[in-house]
Amino acid sequence: MLDDTATVPVDPPGGPRGLGLGEFRLDGGFWGGLQDTNTAATLRHCLDWMERLGWIANFDRVARSDTGGERPGWQFSDSEIYKLMEALAWEHGRTGEAWADEALTALTERVAAAQDDDGYLNTCYGHAGQADRYTDLSSGHELYCTGHLLQAAVARLRTVGEDKLVEVARRAADEVCRTFGPDGRDGICGHPEIEVGLAEFGRALREPRYTEQARLFIERRGRGTLRPVTLLDASYFQDDIPVREADAWRGHAVRALYLAAGAVDVAVDTRDTGLLDAVARQWGSSVERRTYLTGGMGSRHQDEGFGEDWELPPDRAYCETCAGIASNMVSWRLYLATGDVKYADLMERTFYNVIAASPSEDGKAFFYANPLHQRSAAAAMRPDDVNPRAEGGVRAPWFDVSCCPTNLARTLASWQAYAASVDGDQVTLLQYANGDMRIAVGGAALALRITTAYPKTGAIRIEVLAAPPGPVELRLRVPNWAEGATLTADSTTAAVEPGWAIVHAPLRPGATVVLDLPVAPRFTWPDDRIDAVRGCVAVERGPLVLCVESIDLPEGHVIESLRVDPAHPPRLEADGAVVRASSGPGLATSGLPYRSAMRPRAVVPETDLRLIPYHRWAGRGSTAMRVFLPVA
Amino acid sequence: MLDDTATVPVDPPGGPRGLGLGEFRLDGGFWGGLQDTNTAATLRHCLDWMERLGWIANFDRVARSDTGGERPGWQFSDSEIYKLMEALAWEHGRTGEAWADEALTALTERVAAAQDDDGYLNTCYGHAGQADRYTDLSSGHELYCTGHLLQAAVARLRTVGEDKLVEVARRAADEVCRTFGPDGRDGICGHPEIEVGLAEFGRALREPRYTEQARLFIERRGRGTLRPVTLLDASYFQDDIPVREADAWRGHAVRALYLAAGAVDVAVDTRDTGLLDAVARQWGSSVERRTYLTGGMGSRHQDEGFGEDWELPPDRAYCETCAGIASNMVSWRLYLATGDVKYADLMERTFYNVIAASPSEDGKAFFYANPLHQRSAAAAMRPDDVNPRAEGGVRAPWFDVSCCPTNLARTLASWQAYAASVDGDQVTLLQYANGDMRIAVGGAALALRITTAYPKTGAIRIEVLAAPPGPVELRLRVPNWAEGATLTADSTTAAVEPGWAIVHAPLRPGATVVLDLPVAPRFTWPDDRIDAVRGCVAVERGPLVLCVESIDLPEGHVIESLRVDPAHPPRLEADGAVVRASSGPGLATSGLPYRSAMRPRAVVPETDLRLIPYHRWAGRGSTAMRVFLPVA
Repeated sequence: MLDDTATVPVDPPGGPRGLGLGEFRLDGGFWGGLQDTNTAATLRHCLDWMERLGWIANFDRVARSDTGGERPGWQFSDSEIYKLMEALAWEHGRTGEAWADEALTALTERVAAAQDDDGYLNTCYGHAGQADRYTDLSSGHELYCTGHLLQAAVARLRTVGEDKLVEVARRAADEVCRTFGPDGRDGICGHPEIEVGLAEFGRALREPRYTEQARLFIERRGRGTLRPVTLLDASYFQDDIPVREADAWRGHAVRALYLAAGAVDVAVDTRDTGLLDAVARQWGSSVERRTYLTGGMGSRHQDEGFGEDWELPPDRAYCETCAGIASNMVSWRLYLATGDVKYADLMERTFYNVIAASPSEDGKAFFYANPLHQRSAAAAMRPDDVNPRAEGGVRAPWFDVSCCPTNLARTLASWQAYAASVDGDQVTLLQYANGDMRIAVGGAALALRITTAYPKTGAIRIEVLAAPPGPVELRLRVPNWAEGATLTADSTTAAVEPGWAIVHAPLRPGATVVLDLPVAPRFTWPDDRIDAVRGCVAVERGPLVLCVESIDLPEGHVIESLRVDPAHPPRLEADGAVVRASSGPGLATSGLPYRSAMRPRAVVPETDLRLIPYHRWAGRGSTAMRVFLPVA
Repeated sequence: MLDDTATVPVDPPGGPRGLGLGEFRLDGGFWGGLQDTNTAATLRHCLDWMERLGWIANFDRVARSDTGGERPGWQFSDSEIYKLMEALAWEHGRTGEAWADEALTALTERVAAAQDDDGYLNTCYGHAGQADRYTDLSSGHELYCTGHLLQAAVARLRTVGEDKLVEVARRAADEVCRTFGPDGRDGICGHPEIEVGLAEFGRALREPRYTEQARLFIERRGRGTLRPVTLLDASYFQDDIPVREADAWRGHAVRALYLAAGAVDVAVDTRDTGLLDAVARQWGSSVERRTYLTGGMGSRHQDEGFGEDWELPPDRAYCETCAGIASNMVSWRLYLATGDVKYADLMERTFYNVIAASPSEDGKAFFYANPLHQRSAAAAMRPDDVNPRAEGGVRAPWFDVSCCPTNLARTLASWQAYAASVDGDQVTLLQYANGDMRIAVGGAALALRITTAYPKTGAIRIEVLAAPPGPVELRLRVPNWAEGATLTADSTTAAVEPGWAIVHAPLRPGATVVLDLPVAPRFTWPDDRIDAVRGCVAVERGPLVLCVESIDLPEGHVIESLRVDPAHPPRLEADGAVVRASSGPGLATSGLPYRSAMRPRAVVPETDLRLIPYHRWAGRGSTAMRVFLPVA
């Protein structure tokens, strides 16, 4: 194992660093539980599915020059293997588990055997019976796949060091630089990802050619060079406006966000403040006008894309799990680049309400889309079913386009990285989870035991087990929703405002700090320009968005006619809340549903209505569900 | 010219008949104007575009066995030529115009030359270098194209009689019957249309084999035999549930509606009341829960489809022009089958607010999608631009998938058919337009001069110019929105309720009847289960839905923050209305747009706000627009 502090997915020069995976051992609780399930079930689930479907065997077929027949999987299926490899690398780095190392090594052998002599590596193009290399940059996804290979190699390099995977990735990256370099082809990939892969691989190997190639791809984008895809325009793949000129994210959400993440990397590495400011500006306007309460991004199914300002329909929200992951990739890079707490705030929201919503309790089924309103219960799926669509309402074992399960696997395997940051002698806790931190500060260790049931309860107790001899500044993030938080240190309790709470008490072994965040349920109101939820209110509890499921409706109530009484604030119940609500008796009118005067329909009298955390919806079977509730 | 009474697109056995094209001569006004523009511009515009793009030349290439190269147009482009041929046939039948006849004859020659010896006729399949016939029933659209050929032949048969087009169609229909008949292949087409084509062609030729083949296609549907299309399920092409078992329309709207139209034809011809009741039930539930205020159908861009109950987002409304035409195809058939006024009511709404909205004033550009809310002005198009997408906001000269212009052309060319119905000695006026009717009742003529500026004004004056010697019952449709209408006959004015107003006065030459419909602007409220327009009101005027365009906003007002004052009823202004409205000053908040308490933003004081008829929006250039306005 290498230096713990270096085992991070993102390691820009200067500024704060994220937490090395070995610096924080989770012990149960919300994120420990999700990570344990990832370890116990999801990683192997992904491996088994991709073996069964022949997506891994595609590499074997290239290796033995057997590429004439029909190839299982989409043209981008290689990327799923790479994302799983990245997950396995982090998993092994974090836990030392031999099976993760063995599985990764076995995959590496099969992938390596498919690499062409000049470094090109793709199972869908460039071999007998296949289309030529790079003949379809708009939809071919070759550079996208390579980007994921590089990210897997970064994980391996930072947890184990140079090995065969790193060598394979280096040869692939070199081939990309030769083909698309300053003197090469003036092309970009329809699906960004190569940028973020090259940038980090360049950092990990201290190879400026890779950073420069990432920069070239960023600069070339937005000039309309990609051949349009049927019924979509250039904004779909962000080829409509140069990155540094755009005001908001648009088009396919995952593409827009992977591109933005790569742009931050390039901006930081090349000290390009104009580019950094552009992405920060896009983050600001997109969060203000194109983001769901859950942190979810992507309003449209049609192009899996952002909509226009204020176009945020709860029922047709796409909010792809991968877009949540990608949003956190951007926010994390912007946090490291700027230190602004707002980026960590959005990450918390997205972690709890998009990323944590995706996996089933057993880690073997996943949400792809994460709508905030499900009008009718979806059909259930069997454990061996592949979901051909990305509709919401049911967690599926696998998908025809199955980007989310492996993306989730790599994110959960490396979750620690985002929990805190270290900048010189300043340590900042960003996300709260139960476990033990042992952070390298200067040459010594700051050991903290964090005890919390967060977000179920709001108390986060931090006990200092060991401290470096020199000064350490400990900062705690007070989330932007946490009005009324308190910090207790040195037996003194003080109110703290959203933002940074700085612990002024000396950090001696035995010292204890308690941050108390108010997690009582609360009403949350949408901006009145979001047409789709006008006249509605949501209920949140701490970082959790809550929802109503049809399974919890009292007798006689129907989900399409609920009316919440805003005079009764929500009160705590179990993990969720209870509000007072009335509702219509059912579907009473007939004919065209527009009238010169609406007759009030009979109403079911006010009663208690239960809400549960959004991330657990559909956990008791398929249901109808809504986050935003009309106000009486 | 044949018997005028037979020149109708739909001629079921028994019950009322529609108006023959020669029985109603429009004289300017709303529909006369649209029809004149169709004559003067749209027909030739369609012909020129399809010649320029090579879609017509595809037939020539098949005729000379030159099918190896790349073929311009989608696999269904033949259908556009057939829809134009249908339009030309009605046009010639209605006007006697030689150029329409010549253009149709020339097209017929080119189409006929491409027909295979066994009657198969398609320029995309079945020839050298092409995929085999009927190898892709899900997406190939071969039977869909044939269905449109048969509808064109019906128009020719009923306006001119047997000719080469009819013969071509007969051979094509026979090939379909041989291939897919009771002893043939158990297949259906992914896009319904062959059903309605075969049924009417069977009626026109008195050929029961065609009716039977239409019946077979209807019965086979909904049994999951179509291979799924990527990312869509069987409901997309209505292959999920048998027609007689479904409760609502779902999936691709045009497909669902063409199928329903064919099912009514089959039900009527085979006296299958179960099937007729099923379609009537689907109409009822779909109109109640899946239809826009404009009559538009299809809530989703993704699959051009219906959404779920109450899923009616105004901004992402697809409301394809073709779906409006198809909806009227269904409603018209249900009206003829049942005589229920509600079908004619919906047709009026759809005629004025979907179909009339599509063409530009010059008849050379068209809306494909007809949303009820355009958030930002679309980019303008040049007269030689093909629109690759079906987004709303701008009328385009032509589309990559260009189904709407030719569909509009055939509908406007035959608009008279839907204006009245005749059943024995009962004559029913359904749609009001300025012009002269000369209707065959029994063996004699009822001649009516209709004078009206409807819908600009509400008075419809009907003067009897000639009447048959025997009794005639004249009925007038009083639209379902027309509370407070009056009927003046024999110098007596009486209130009439929505539904049928029966003229009891004797219909002697010189007698005059005046129907007065209240077309003052009025507020219209949506059912409170339509989440997307909660807290909003619309303004209507007679049959017209009105809208606000950004170009008409008073200084300081912004379209996303308008607030209408419901205490001030709308008042008439020009063709539209004026309401009182305030609005926010612009985009003031920042950060995630959800708050525990919203700060009220500064408001621009109440002022007059102008609304115009929806069907004319974007007529003064690209604008933002909305139909539903938030209430203060």
